[in-house]
Amino acid sequence: MTDIREQGLKKPVNVAEYLFRRLHEIGIRSVHGLPGDFNLVALDYIPKAGLKWVGSVNELNAAYAADGYARTKGISAIFTTFGVGELSAINGIAGAFSEHVPVVHIVGCPSTISQRNGMLLHHTLGNGDFNVFANMSSQISCDVARLNKRAEIADQIDHALRECWIRSRPVYIMLPTDMVERKVEGARLDTPIDLTEPANQSEREDYVVDVVLRYLHAAKQPVILVDACAIRHRVLKEVHDLVEKTQLPVFVTPMGKGAINEDHPNYGGVYAGTGSQPAVAERVETADLVLSIGALKSDFNTAGFSYRTSQLNTIDFHSDHCTVRYSEYPGVAMRGVLRKVVERVDLSKLSRPPSPEVVNEVTKNRDSSQTITQAFFWPRIGEYLKENDIVVTETGTSNFGIWETKYPRGVTGITQILWGSIGWSVGAAQGAALAAKDMGVDRRTILFVGDGSFQLTAQEVSTMIRHDLRITIFLIFNGGFTIERFIHGMEAEYNDITRWNYIDVPTAFGGSEKQVRKFVVKTKDELEELLTDTDFNEARGLQFVELWMRKDDAPRALKITAEIAARNNASMSE
Amino acid sequence: MTDIREQGLKKPVNVAEYLFRRLHEIGIRSVHGLPGDFNLVALDYIPKAGLKWVGSVNELNAAYAADGYARTKGISAIFTTFGVGELSAINGIAGAFSEHVPVVHIVGCPSTISQRNGMLLHHTLGNGDFNVFANMSSQISCDVARLNKRAEIADQIDHALRECWIRSRPVYIMLPTDMVERKVEGARLDTPIDLTEPANQSEREDYVVDVVLRYLHAAKQPVILVDACAIRHRVLKEVHDLVEKTQLPVFVTPMGKGAINEDHPNYGGVYAGTGSQPAVAERVETADLVLSIGALKSDFNTAGFSYRTSQLNTIDFHSDHCTVRYSEYPGVAMRGVLRKVVERVDLSKLSRPPSPEVVNEVTKNRDSSQTITQAFFWPRIGEYLKENDIVVTETGTSNFGIWETKYPRGVTGITQILWGSIGWSVGAAQGAALAAKDMGVDRRTILFVGDGSFQLTAQEVSTMIRHDLRITIFLIFNGGFTIERFIHGMEAEYNDITRWNYIDVPTAFGGSEKQVRKFVVKTKDELEELLTDTDFNEARGLQFVELWMRKDDAPRALKITAEIAARNNASMSE
Repeated sequence: MTDIREQGLKKPVNVAEYLFRRLHEIGIRSVHGLPGDFNLVALDYIPKAGLKWVGSVNELNAAYAADGYARTKGISAIFTTFGVGELSAINGIAGAFSEHVPVVHIVGCPSTISQRNGMLLHHTLGNGDFNVFANMSSQISCDVARLNKRAEIADQIDHALRECWIRSRPVYIMLPTDMVERKVEGARLDTPIDLTEPANQSEREDYVVDVVLRYLHAAKQPVILVDACAIRHRVLKEVHDLVEKTQLPVFVTPMGKGAINEDHPNYGGVYAGTGSQPAVAERVETADLVLSIGALKSDFNTAGFSYRTSQLNTIDFHSDHCTVRYSEYPGVAMRGVLRKVVERVDLSKLSRPPSPEVVNEVTKNRDSSQTITQAFFWPRIGEYLKENDIVVTETGTSNFGIWETKYPRGVTGITQILWGSIGWSVGAAQGAALAAKDMGVDRRTILFVGDGSFQLTAQEVSTMIRHDLRITIFLIFNGGFTIERFIHGMEAEYNDITRWNYIDVPTAFGGSEKQVRKFVVKTKDELEELLTDTDFNEARGLQFVELWMRKDDAPRALKITAEIAARNNASMSE
Repeated sequence: MTDIREQGLKKPVNVAEYLFRRLHEIGIRSVHGLPGDFNLVALDYIPKAGLKWVGSVNELNAAYAADGYARTKGISAIFTTFGVGELSAINGIAGAFSEHVPVVHIVGCPSTISQRNGMLLHHTLGNGDFNVFANMSSQISCDVARLNKRAEIADQIDHALRECWIRSRPVYIMLPTDMVERKVEGARLDTPIDLTEPANQSEREDYVVDVVLRYLHAAKQPVILVDACAIRHRVLKEVHDLVEKTQLPVFVTPMGKGAINEDHPNYGGVYAGTGSQPAVAERVETADLVLSIGALKSDFNTAGFSYRTSQLNTIDFHSDHCTVRYSEYPGVAMRGVLRKVVERVDLSKLSRPPSPEVVNEVTKNRDSSQTITQAFFWPRIGEYLKENDIVVTETGTSNFGIWETKYPRGVTGITQILWGSIGWSVGAAQGAALAAKDMGVDRRTILFVGDGSFQLTAQEVSTMIRHDLRITIFLIFNGGFTIERFIHGMEAEYNDITRWNYIDVPTAFGGSEKQVRKFVVKTKDELEELLTDTDFNEARGLQFVELWMRKDDAPRALKITAEIAARNNASMSE
């Protein structure tokens, strides 16, 4: 049936084509997801728009992978089927919302006729309510677009994609089967979607810049502290310029790790309150001005809210407001302010305290035993990493251990410290490596994941094999949920897991001996041999390392944070 | 801190102990789930209440398993952690809601103090909203209990568990860390929770019974049709009594399969409109009265809404109402009505048409090739099954193929035809087998799952191994999503999957050669040999069969339903 109104279109294109060409335009090259009968016809249009279908193993993994893809390439998409598919993905999308990651979630849903008639279809709750899942997703999306009316669809798509990018959070697009091949105006595609952020109102911005400069010029010991939202809201260029221009000491939070070139002489290390190395804590906490950029002060990002800095000494730069001491400036976004601060700072008025020296403390943490300790491992990894590596660390020991790793220049650090969903990193590593491949860049992706977490999403290894991705997996084989043990139940059965034959997992998932190189590493000597092996460093395809560590060993920072978390959980009142 | 009000308790018990003792009382013996720091302390109380902690591999699998457990043992529980854990499970819980399965979902959440202070904790969206996930779950739960006030907790728990049972749907219980060890009145535990359904108002019930009997006595060709809600709302005893007393022909829908002893002479087969065998369609569609018990007329349960019965010839019995032709009787539940119909039916006035004969059509469907066809396989399986087997069939070819399988007496059939979430069956089989083990009964659990679906939840095999469950898995190795191929995209890449070495999967997941017996079956002869092997039939532990079938082969009923689904998806309007 052709709608009479479709005849007036200058360049009619199908809705699916329009949507996928827009995805391509904003930088997406691969779409994660699984087929289902409510998205099948639309899937035919993916290759036609120059996109690749990933063919994920399950929707949660697909969502995690889309998260990793977006953190690497800027934005990503996942396409699921109504009800069953989208709900399986929802935890991954919630993580992207929590951590400010722009993921476009497209859901193939029943036709508008079926919806209107309240049909008792498969993948429904059987109650005729076709909006219930969209309502759930609206809680974790910055825009919801139900593509139910042909004439509105192109606008809805453009708006959703712009919101996704600008607000750096997931959007939800519901695509009914009967709309997939309806025609919309393709001439719109000649004009790219406007992805520029709205500029700050100039007078307000100048006012904030003046206030910031006044405090900055007056400070004796100013420092810069870079956190998650500086990465997620894409102000790293401005931050780098600020560091170069001012030569101030610069620190990162755990969620900000990777934002700053750690080889830079001004780089001072990871600040996380009592979880910091002493020299770092000393420098940041004695600063009389902290330029805090994109802060996200969650418990695990602050070693249990253990900052000893004062708001009276802090200027906060955010994507939608700034705060100077206790003065708030809503609607003044950090990008414009940072740019002008860089332009206008008077270097002659600037005091510059020294930055602590950051090195990988390998020798200091090397004991005489052959056991690979957490304390030894993470600095040693700092020496193994190369420029431009993508490093993905799982919630648990890896996320805390990596604080002790000094990254080479250009490393992208990918963590999920706020949302902290175990198993996330396996999907995220797949997505990150695929993004690198799509970008045609020669980068290794290195994943650190514990055995407990790995079990949740292990089959994502199959997707890595399917797309021949360049990923090195360090599976920390330590018998279960070590982070939980340190919070409660060190010897409890519920923190144990079934012992898998991990080394056989990639083969079972279809990886031939040629496709996957596998290693078991139980001693420091074996680790040394592996990390200095040329082929291993070359890392051409998938590499899988089963790395033995003790179940009662944990990184320093994890122990501190776990203790605070346990205390927090136990505190009572009514 | 002890609350002064706790001192007045006669038998003070911890909230966790109270909750878990109530779970035990209503028949739960194993609790599915994963540890997380917001549920760790509560987990200590699970063994103290005589419950077993399953230690699932991920939350979605845990939810699927809880679904299978409840379908076998009557009710089940899953315990997850806030945000990340519960959202991973939500698709499984939505399935239980859709299909009327009573699952108690307990979520360990941050302390009431953290909630009140809107703390920026891990596993949150970072926006201080601690109710957002409960609000999502409220859409798929028949009760939500936030255990935030000590004095109300015992009442809240008892109410939630009663609702779960009576309404046969999931409930959501949010347990803050600081409430776990608060004291509530343990003396309440001396009185079991009242799980009896409210009786119908007697005069109304009698009225409906009279109307039903009037039509039943007048009918020349009455038949009984048993559907999902007869099982899920536990009226099988009443249905069996009705069949025994009246000797009427009795049919089941696909979702009702397993409700009726298929060895019974009155059993006439599976009715699903145009998806029925001809003799079945003939008998049901020429009936002048269909006693339809617990109908759930979804698309896949009716071969695409293809019933050719008339509402003018139908009496519908439901858990919360009855309908006679077009007369509705809200609030009149089927149980009481069915009981009185059995008591009061006048057999001298009853016409009894003959039932079609149901046999496993093995010979008729055996062709001369060695290829194992869908047409041959499912009747052959009917001959392999034994009394009291638990048969779990996955969405896809298995769910439709099983229509052609005649079950022996006492078989429990477990399917998820309405919700239809692929991968569900692997978890459900684990839960079903665990339930059988918990009940101490000597039953085999047999799982039929396609390779595409298996990949989503494969690691549940690890849980089967961990608990030494008696499960035989038939993995249909046919290269991807066959059901989707028949709907759209027979040769499309998006319906392909990565080829795993399936036979190596159980070993990779920790199963020793002793724990798991493995078979590859490519021909009819090999299948015959396997199905007649004594040890295989004994099925003492986990058995894994990789069964080769063609990717373009599908059961008869699937082909019919897929065609209708494709047409339905494509139908256009605006």
